[in-house]
Amino acid sequence: MKVAVDAMGGDKAPHEVIKGSVLAAQQFRDSEILLVGDEKAIQRELASYSTVPKNITTHHASQVISMEDPATYSIRQKTNSSITRSVELVASGEAAAVVSAGHTGATVAASTLHLRTLKEVRRPGIAAPFPTRNGVCLVIDVGANIACKPIHLFQYGVMSTIFSKYIFGVKDPRVGLLNIGEEDAKGNDLAKETFALLSHSQLTFVGNVEGREIFDGKADIVVCEGFVGNVMLKFAEGLAAGLLSTIKTEAMKSFWTKLGLFLCKPAFAPLKAKMDFTEYGGVPLLGVNGVCIICHGRSDSKAIYNAIRVALQLSKNKVNDQIVSELEKANAPTASVT
Amino acid sequence: MKVAVDAMGGDKAPHEVIKGSVLAAQQFRDSEILLVGDEKAIQRELASYSTVPKNITTHHASQVISMEDPATYSIRQKTNSSITRSVELVASGEAAAVVSAGHTGATVAASTLHLRTLKEVRRPGIAAPFPTRNGVCLVIDVGANIACKPIHLFQYGVMSTIFSKYIFGVKDPRVGLLNIGEEDAKGNDLAKETFALLSHSQLTFVGNVEGREIFDGKADIVVCEGFVGNVMLKFAEGLAAGLLSTIKTEAMKSFWTKLGLFLCKPAFAPLKAKMDFTEYGGVPLLGVNGVCIICHGRSDSKAIYNAIRVALQLSKNKVNDQIVSELEKANAPTASVT
Repeated sequence: MKVAVDAMGGDKAPHEVIKGSVLAAQQFRDSEILLVGDEKAIQRELASYSTVPKNITTHHASQVISMEDPATYSIRQKTNSSITRSVELVASGEAAAVVSAGHTGATVAASTLHLRTLKEVRRPGIAAPFPTRNGVCLVIDVGANIACKPIHLFQYGVMSTIFSKYIFGVKDPRVGLLNIGEEDAKGNDLAKETFALLSHSQLTFVGNVEGREIFDGKADIVVCEGFVGNVMLKFAEGLAAGLLSTIKTEAMKSFWTKLGLFLCKPAFAPLKAKMDFTEYGGVPLLGVNGVCIICHGRSDSKAIYNAIRVALQLSKNKVNDQIVSELEKANAPTASVT
Repeated sequence: MKVAVDAMGGDKAPHEVIKGSVLAAQQFRDSEILLVGDEKAIQRELASYSTVPKNITTHHASQVISMEDPATYSIRQKTNSSITRSVELVASGEAAAVVSAGHTGATVAASTLHLRTLKEVRRPGIAAPFPTRNGVCLVIDVGANIACKPIHLFQYGVMSTIFSKYIFGVKDPRVGLLNIGEEDAKGNDLAKETFALLSHSQLTFVGNVEGREIFDGKADIVVCEGFVGNVMLKFAEGLAAGLLSTIKTEAMKSFWTKLGLFLCKPAFAPLKAKMDFTEYGGVPLLGVNGVCIICHGRSDSKAIYNAIRVALQLSKNKVNDQIVSELEKANAPTASVT
């Protein structure tokens, strides 16, 4: 199983990306890591290792898409970028999966363009894990699709149910619909129509989920439009970081509170672990014909390692085949309902 | 200046609502508080006070809209509910403002139906204060309007700018547009078209604001569609409460962390104050022809007192007249742009 890794993507590239890739290559002996990017830069990094695992190869790409580049423009103009080349390796069948901590928009655009969607899938969606009181809730979509139709949200429910089963080991994932009230008839047209689709599906649909119920763990999966999901994801990052830093700043103001914070530190640990994106490695772009894992721009070696692990799990479990098969099955009853 | 208070609205009604109203009547001698609801229940509460302020009167309403009632249905069916009667007192000119901690949807529906919108205003919107690192950010709309057009969002910017000036004392409020990226051309059609409208306006427009930038205080006001705003408001409540309770639960697990949390307590105080909705009293439904303050269902006497204070401030400062005048002015240049 081969994974193409965008060696130039992310704030800490290529150093941390290559470090994570080497770790993964050592751990997953039956896999092959294809490092894609500036050949010289990659070789310079690899030279610092006493031994480079044999299952690491390099693929030259002369360009890098920076965070400032507009997504679609850069995909069209920088045809030899590390992101595009990585995705192309999957499109041509040379690799099964791509992992990138680079420009998210460009990765989504390149994957959608070169990999195309899976049979039966209308639009790809990004599923991001949100911390909850006792675990994690997958929110899909968080930014790949900002013009969602009910059928897209329904398909997100199907795709993330399979993802949740295979990657998080949830036996029977509960799917919720992000809405502004708990009653069935609440929400805008998109929410109402999606509610009807999900109610008649084979998914374990738990109804509408309000914003406040996500942390309480009312559902294992919450489907929503990409605009709302993206706003919520970034808002959560900002709020959680802001709250913790406010507590810290306040605690530093006196000796006793400073001591208190020091003693209290272990109580913050589980929370920090919950919010640690490096544990999950990255978020999958579900629905494209290939495996695509998008990592946080601040990814370190641990995040890259875990992203490669998830990419391999998705590939080995043939999650995409299962998505197609489930959607084929789902299409029949759905068609009879409408 | 008369304020109609829905004495039966909220989890702690009528006790806390009447307590807050009595406090407000004592403090604001030149105002009059009209307690609306079940006459007997109100009199029973008032009987527990040694002296009832003379500027408190009662207005009987035989019905109560419960939290389980669907909003529009209850407004049509329960025509003698405390919410409807309170709003009607404003519509008939007997009161200048209405304050309710009851069913939010019903309050919005009754106000929109009976008060109608101000001249020039297309849709009313609810402006809710979100805590930020150094103050507060008004997010509008958080649920009154889930089918927003660009002109609605633009008008929300105008209305909340006036509100922010008069109620929060912000001299020149910075208005941002909630979006999924900082670049000008980002977002869905609604965001792009609203961006154009705000860019050409007289408002102090600071561009797109991402979810993570709200807590950092990039803007004093953030305009967004009601569905997104409502999701974000409830998500913030759930996340903040969840994070703090997780820390507390963890800290209780050992003697040292328990001691640490005890010593650390003062460091949490400013954060708790920031998140304390009772400080703001309630959120205004801006754009209706009258003053309408919607309180949290869990409102206590302090929240009701503050809501009455804000209602009086809005009425005395003739904020609605200023909204109409600003929108009249704004219409000319906007029209020339489109």
